[in-house]
Amino acid sequence: MPRQELEYPSEPFSTGNRYSGRGSHALETIHRIVNTSPLLHVAFNDPNSPFPAVLPMIGQTGSFERPSADLGDVLELYLHGYVSSRIINLARNPATPKGLPLTISASHVDGLVLALTPNSHSLNYRSAILFGHATVVTSVPEKLYAMQLITDAIVPSRWEHTRVPPNAAEMQSTSVLRVTIATGSAKIRSGMPHDERGDMEDEELKGRVWTGVVPVHTVMGEPVAGPYNGVGSVPEYLERWRVEENKEAEALAMEQLKEK
Amino acid sequence: MPRQELEYPSEPFSTGNRYSGRGSHALETIHRIVNTSPLLHVAFNDPNSPFPAVLPMIGQTGSFERPSADLGDVLELYLHGYVSSRIINLARNPATPKGLPLTISASHVDGLVLALTPNSHSLNYRSAILFGHATVVTSVPEKLYAMQLITDAIVPSRWEHTRVPPNAAEMQSTSVLRVTIATGSAKIRSGMPHDERGDMEDEELKGRVWTGVVPVHTVMGEPVAGPYNGVGSVPEYLERWRVEENKEAEALAMEQLKEK
Repeated sequence: MPRQELEYPSEPFSTGNRYSGRGSHALETIHRIVNTSPLLHVAFNDPNSPFPAVLPMIGQTGSFERPSADLGDVLELYLHGYVSSRIINLARNPATPKGLPLTISASHVDGLVLALTPNSHSLNYRSAILFGHATVVTSVPEKLYAMQLITDAIVPSRWEHTRVPPNAAEMQSTSVLRVTIATGSAKIRSGMPHDERGDMEDEELKGRVWTGVVPVHTVMGEPVAGPYNGVGSVPEYLERWRVEENKEAEALAMEQLKEK
Repeated sequence: MPRQELEYPSEPFSTGNRYSGRGSHALETIHRIVNTSPLLHVAFNDPNSPFPAVLPMIGQTGSFERPSADLGDVLELYLHGYVSSRIINLARNPATPKGLPLTISASHVDGLVLALTPNSHSLNYRSAILFGHATVVTSVPEKLYAMQLITDAIVPSRWEHTRVPPNAAEMQSTSVLRVTIATGSAKIRSGMPHDERGDMEDEELKGRVWTGVVPVHTVMGEPVAGPYNGVGSVPEYLERWRVEENKEAEALAMEQLKEK
């Protein structure tokens, strides 16, 4: 019997009311968008400012309790890097034992959608938002799990190809946040332009304005060795992954030309 | 006499306290990062939720009063597209005549920085944040200015190559927000990996772990015509721009290999 696809609960704050046909609450969809985003935007209310604070951070969803969990399972989000003392102090605040409420967003642009009229222009994109409560990870095994998860998200199996485990000073200076996810949602736009009927029936207009999609994707160029690199050639685990990822990124942008 | 470079004021909420050498408050730097980002993340406090709301939106900085202003001048930010009625209603709230406080973030990833240890891994990136107050644009000329600004940000001179001006129904159904910018900041990481001295002096380690940067950039692929396109070939204004942009994006990722 195929397993039911898990979804996040639909809360008033997590549900867009426009283009709702583009929305999704499927865990797998949301987690995949987050995990393939090299940089996440992490927003939280700053008690001393009228403006929410937003920090660019690195993060990954995963499960310390069940490391073999897949993307469609219930997961936590681990955040690391560029952790200002501000967010860490807020996450440690005993007044909010559940943790600091965070909104995490991730977006990929897949294409420029060029229509007959400016108003019908759009982007093909995949965007995800997670809402959750962040606390500082204090358990050493969980911290190591998260550090490896995040390092291997930069390049798969990078962790085992570096100097590990982190020493005491590194463990001390690094903070990892665990976000217990309350809910989340995704918005995806794919396919070709849509115009209003009046414009679509205007043959002169259709013969004058080019319409379609310019596919967009990310490319990783040839690795450039640093000043103290002592390895003769780019290792195969890195090079093979890079070439494969580039192919997949291009294929995905083309796949998003189709309406889902 | 060369003009002084304008900077945004440094406020407690707009200043990172870590890696502050990577920070900038220069208007030109910040506006450029925002204007070259196809999608912005727009955060605001939601009175009915513990979590900030975050929406992916399209936007551009510009000046309706002085359209010839350059990126280093004082500008407004115009936001358009994916405007939920929630944000519009909040921006119209008479209880906040200055407008709805928004935090707008934009990030570009320029490279994967691979170091000897997981902790020293990083990204080359350019990230900008703007803080400001949003109101709904009601003046028709200003709304048209913003619509053209944003359309031409997708593809330069796209506006004049489409069916314009927007008709009454389009003007009615489209909302544009003007954000009066209070302040902003940028964070930029460029250059090669840095490791701790102990690791840098470990010849065995340096001979075993490849270190350097994998440059990352965005590519626009061959435009794909839509189902009702009636133009024989991709127009030159689009194709020439696409090829040039791809070259510049690649060159910028390589340029970011150097420490700034």
